[in-house]
Amino acid sequence: MDSHVGGKLTVELSTRVETQRDLSIAYSPGVAQVSRAIAKDASLSKTHTWAERLVVVASDGTSVLGLGDIGALASLPVMEGKAALFKKFAGLNSIPLVFDTTDVDEIVNMLVKLRPSYGAINLEDIAAPRCFEIEQRLVEALDCPVMHDDQHGTAIVVLAGLKGAVAVQGRNLADLKVVVSGAGAAGVACANILLAAGVTDIVVLDSKGIVSADRADLNDVKAELAGRTNPRGITGGPAEALAGADVFLGLSAGLIAEELIASMAPECFVFAMSNPDPEIHPEVAAKYAAVVATGRSDFPNQINNVLAFPGVFKGALDCGARRITEGMKIAAADAIFSVVADELATDKIVPSPLDPRVAPAVAAAVAAAARAEGVA
Amino acid sequence: MDSHVGGKLTVELSTRVETQRDLSIAYSPGVAQVSRAIAKDASLSKTHTWAERLVVVASDGTSVLGLGDIGALASLPVMEGKAALFKKFAGLNSIPLVFDTTDVDEIVNMLVKLRPSYGAINLEDIAAPRCFEIEQRLVEALDCPVMHDDQHGTAIVVLAGLKGAVAVQGRNLADLKVVVSGAGAAGVACANILLAAGVTDIVVLDSKGIVSADRADLNDVKAELAGRTNPRGITGGPAEALAGADVFLGLSAGLIAEELIASMAPECFVFAMSNPDPEIHPEVAAKYAAVVATGRSDFPNQINNVLAFPGVFKGALDCGARRITEGMKIAAADAIFSVVADELATDKIVPSPLDPRVAPAVAAAVAAAARAEGVA
Repeated sequence: MDSHVGGKLTVELSTRVETQRDLSIAYSPGVAQVSRAIAKDASLSKTHTWAERLVVVASDGTSVLGLGDIGALASLPVMEGKAALFKKFAGLNSIPLVFDTTDVDEIVNMLVKLRPSYGAINLEDIAAPRCFEIEQRLVEALDCPVMHDDQHGTAIVVLAGLKGAVAVQGRNLADLKVVVSGAGAAGVACANILLAAGVTDIVVLDSKGIVSADRADLNDVKAELAGRTNPRGITGGPAEALAGADVFLGLSAGLIAEELIASMAPECFVFAMSNPDPEIHPEVAAKYAAVVATGRSDFPNQINNVLAFPGVFKGALDCGARRITEGMKIAAADAIFSVVADELATDKIVPSPLDPRVAPAVAAAVAAAARAEGVA
Repeated sequence: MDSHVGGKLTVELSTRVETQRDLSIAYSPGVAQVSRAIAKDASLSKTHTWAERLVVVASDGTSVLGLGDIGALASLPVMEGKAALFKKFAGLNSIPLVFDTTDVDEIVNMLVKLRPSYGAINLEDIAAPRCFEIEQRLVEALDCPVMHDDQHGTAIVVLAGLKGAVAVQGRNLADLKVVVSGAGAAGVACANILLAAGVTDIVVLDSKGIVSADRADLNDVKAELAGRTNPRGITGGPAEALAGADVFLGLSAGLIAEELIASMAPECFVFAMSNPDPEIHPEVAAKYAAVVATGRSDFPNQINNVLAFPGVFKGALDCGARRITEGMKIAAADAIFSVVADELATDKIVPSPLDPRVAPAVAAAVAAAARAEGVA
């Protein structure tokens, strides 16, 4: 608790205000020249304000860590921490903005109207399915990078980790039977990025069982997902999904019994990423799995979003990207993987979260992908 | 222009993120403890986030310096500068937020919904009469300091300057015939604070002439003001207002002819505060006036808001004030005056904007007034 007293951020001057002359340059009357110039040529705001490279970390506090809907105020320490990590790992200025409303229209409208104030939006800890609509509407309305990190940051690092596991074991992504446990923000995004990366056999589980086209209780997002997953058309719950599966991706905070992990295919991969309590203890999972990953820093193979979001936003802002595409996300995953490609081991499928090589590599890859796709 | 490249602000970490352990304290999973605690006891957000002492500098860009309605984007360099001055002079963290809307309901709603993100609002460069309604509605809706600086910052420093001029000349505020030229944000606030400070004879001019009860073209704010000013019931324009007046307060960007200044009472005070072009050149005014002040740094007696707003917000935040009252503003003016009370001269009626004694003195006086009034 003590490390958080006073908050984790400070705003400092990046210009000198020591003399009367400094003051009249930084503020009135000198600043009028800059405002007048931007009024004539809006593009000067990109170079002559801080906004172009400022990331807003935005949340309504409805799905905070594993704590659920604790509200905007209580979510603020998390958003501050996230903003701090943007500076630490990518050198980007970032401020937390939390909204005392859960109304999708209001949140979208506020961020659209605040557009001149910032350069990119990291959506954070917004509950599904509202997070999907908010992100989609912002992406459509705005000309700048917008990413819901709980979805795509997680998905990028999961893909990187899976690439690492596959490389260590000499296997192919396309051959894997993957079970995604959880059809919230992270689960849906993981399924999507894996499909885009060439995985063909994905079975998604929610609290009611396998997400499949024959279910009548699915929201729009899950119904759409059902149409693109579960190619073998299996029905049932975790037992049916995991029998013979190659990969378990735990993104739901629900526990998985040891016998279900035991029912998976030999040499399987178990990513038990729920935090702070993994779906299955990694030492138990290791009795059956060739590769085990968690979300925790005290076990090997930590699937930590900080490997992705700083570099993704830095790359997108470096090249002036107007959006963050699926291709840019896959490029980010490839870059994370390639940082440790020569050091891979079953207990090192991803870099350490503190590895200083990661963010620059991710940023370069993301910027290159943005240019290649014509969004920069 | 070059001093503004990249903007004037940077966000830095005020906590350490060097090791895996630091990372797990500053962010997940350690931060969950702070969020959980705030969810149980909201008052912990005051100590364990940065928001409680964060000043938002908010604008819609409709009345920027002397440039008018140049829009949110072009106003941003001014708001950045203002945020920088909050840190420089009061040690307060401050961020600019500019709104791409001029709708009063939208602006008020956004700031209300963002309430968990900040600790105080400095409204800036919003055109009259919308600025009055936005400020009033925010003051009513929120439990934290809200102040439109173009109104009250200016009014506070004008009052301080007038107290200085009066002291130098051995006169009394209550005896002065004051002409306020301009019935926008600053003019209305100056009239109000002078009335509250004991001035009894104020005549306000707008672009159509003297604001008086017999005029049919007044908006609500001006009509209300007409009821409390112009006790001699004079009509006409600048000539009628200035004949025999003791004080000219120029807050309108309109020029005043030399013969009108010549028609004022002997030993008069001329505050020609329009920037960058004063209503009358200070050297010309000095032919007739005992004290001349401007808004410019290259002449004596600069009436600069930076003497007020850093200390006002620091004082209000230091004592946890729920609002900024007229009494707190008058206390701020008294504090500015008292810093130079022993050094007063006709060319030194206010401290230098860089005088490091000012903000702490203002903050202490404002906090004391807030406590005395029971708003802290």
